[in-house]
Amino acid sequence: MARVYNFSAGPSMLPESVLKTAAAEMLDYKGTGESVMEMSHRSKEYGEIITAAESLLREIMNIPDNYKVLFLQGGASTQFAAIPLNFMNGTGKADYVVTGQWAKKAAAEAGRYGDVNIVASSADKTFSYIPKLDKSTFTKDADYFYICMNNTIYGTVYHELPDTGDVPLIADISSCFLSEPLDVTKFGMLYGGAQKNVAPAGVTICIIREDLLGKARDITPTMLNYQIHADNGSMYNTPPCYTIYIMKLVLEWIKNEVGGLEKMKELNEKKAKILYDFLDSSEMFKGTVVPEDRSLMNVPFVTGDTDLDAKFVAAAKEAGFINIKGHRTVGGMRASIYNAMPIEGVEKLVAFMKKFEEENK
Amino acid sequence: MARVYNFSAGPSMLPESVLKTAAAEMLDYKGTGESVMEMSHRSKEYGEIITAAESLLREIMNIPDNYKVLFLQGGASTQFAAIPLNFMNGTGKADYVVTGQWAKKAAAEAGRYGDVNIVASSADKTFSYIPKLDKSTFTKDADYFYICMNNTIYGTVYHELPDTGDVPLIADISSCFLSEPLDVTKFGMLYGGAQKNVAPAGVTICIIREDLLGKARDITPTMLNYQIHADNGSMYNTPPCYTIYIMKLVLEWIKNEVGGLEKMKELNEKKAKILYDFLDSSEMFKGTVVPEDRSLMNVPFVTGDTDLDAKFVAAAKEAGFINIKGHRTVGGMRASIYNAMPIEGVEKLVAFMKKFEEENK
Repeated sequence: MARVYNFSAGPSMLPESVLKTAAAEMLDYKGTGESVMEMSHRSKEYGEIITAAESLLREIMNIPDNYKVLFLQGGASTQFAAIPLNFMNGTGKADYVVTGQWAKKAAAEAGRYGDVNIVASSADKTFSYIPKLDKSTFTKDADYFYICMNNTIYGTVYHELPDTGDVPLIADISSCFLSEPLDVTKFGMLYGGAQKNVAPAGVTICIIREDLLGKARDITPTMLNYQIHADNGSMYNTPPCYTIYIMKLVLEWIKNEVGGLEKMKELNEKKAKILYDFLDSSEMFKGTVVPEDRSLMNVPFVTGDTDLDAKFVAAAKEAGFINIKGHRTVGGMRASIYNAMPIEGVEKLVAFMKKFEEENK
Repeated sequence: MARVYNFSAGPSMLPESVLKTAAAEMLDYKGTGESVMEMSHRSKEYGEIITAAESLLREIMNIPDNYKVLFLQGGASTQFAAIPLNFMNGTGKADYVVTGQWAKKAAAEAGRYGDVNIVASSADKTFSYIPKLDKSTFTKDADYFYICMNNTIYGTVYHELPDTGDVPLIADISSCFLSEPLDVTKFGMLYGGAQKNVAPAGVTICIIREDLLGKARDITPTMLNYQIHADNGSMYNTPPCYTIYIMKLVLEWIKNEVGGLEKMKELNEKKAKILYDFLDSSEMFKGTVVPEDRSLMNVPFVTGDTDLDAKFVAAAKEAGFINIKGHRTVGGMRASIYNAMPIEGVEKLVAFMKKFEEENK
């Protein structure tokens, strides 16, 4: 059938040109006579792929030389433990802001290894906003300060970063990775699973200021010790080679076809505006997030009537708009409009919503 | 160019039919209008893929119902820590047999969490044999007994399992996974990275007797706790979806095109015999492993002259036999002839070796 518009929260759409290249190179990568899936990770050919992926990421995100870029496995969930194991090495204290399920899980895992101070939470209103932060509640001698930048389930994003002074800021950017420019120097560590904006599921990118490395706790499993991976160029053991290859193709797409992160941001703002403007004007569909904290990537909305929500989700699927059902904790719908969602996908979705509203008044 | 014969120790060759299916389904998996790379891991379509992969593996390996099958990330190296963290929960003691670099690393990691008894080692002869085991040296109250079944670097394999009585036997089978039938009931746990015989790099398969689960140490990172993954059907977080899809295609190939593990073994024995018979008759090339412990999968050999070795490796590459250079600790050459290496690949290699020997007497 025709390609569908996939509004999944992740894994989600990849640029069609990337998939076409992957298909064309499947049996014979650039005249090597082998698939990238079959390449020895120690071969010259594969070395060029992983090196290019890192270089492209550094260039696109403007990552300074004093940051290490690691391509790991295990998803963000594995980093929930690796972060305290690697960085709770001074006072054993860390500050966490709880803006949703993923921040909450991260805080809970850190709490198994040290003292976690929940400086703020938006649980009281189903995480529909980013809490205002009061600096006087921050732990002055914390080993780090942790946020989840974009909250996939709830559709919120930090438009302003907390001022943590000398305390390193660590951010999970899984669902806003490469969606817009980010000042890397404001962070001790940025990380995320790649399966939303960067690659298929199976690779986790960690960008870490190098002075924070080398102080992992004794109990840290070797494979969770960031220093080990930094020392070995993400090749301490066999990396998820093919997933990294697809990431390289996506990075090339951002650089060459989109034109970099400023352009990516423009495009994402344009897409999000189409949807939010409609939500703000609709009588039937309402966004669930306070306007000032709305995400560019994940847009949850409801009709206020669960039967009507279900009818809409089913009709949308029928019309080729898939995975638009909201997370069970928010209900209703959620349109995840990641980098690879074409603008026509959003335009057509809004046209479809308008028609649905007309027909179901 | 034409497809090459890839003798890499892993990642390595995949069946050509698998790659063709993957290429054909890249932009539209079975009429869904999306790539498997783009599928929500919670979708019905992806649920069918991962469920089929597990069912096929259970059927092909004849895995009893009281064993859990987990599809994880992080490679065998991550399990080196997960194994002691999950299973060193009684006396805190474990026995390890050191038959190469990977067993040694596994033992070292376990030693960070408990008492490791090295019951035997073949380090004295560059791991060119499997040591004879003396049961009186086994730790009677060990929490488990650990072996690396097939030693990728050195080309040895256990043709007989140690009799560990009630102590659960744990085996790393990364480089012999699905190469021949195995009696799963003899093991407490079987595991391995998939990137040699089963799939591209990025998924690690763990097969664990369920009574061993649920007793992980307090310090175990949640993502290294096997019980968590068993409780969530390998979906606690986003799995490496596409890699698991390719694994499913490989399992279908073993079942439908090869005809199961007995047939796979026949084929592997036939391939290995061609190579070993030639090595035993050659004046120039010699196998490095004692005949009784030879692996079906990895065949290291040397000429005894490092310049001649290098000349052979270069000439072989030129002729389309790639990645045949041996590991630096053994030197010379190594032909890894995993499941997907066609018999013609081995026949042609031997013909090439004969010719090289003639021309370089």
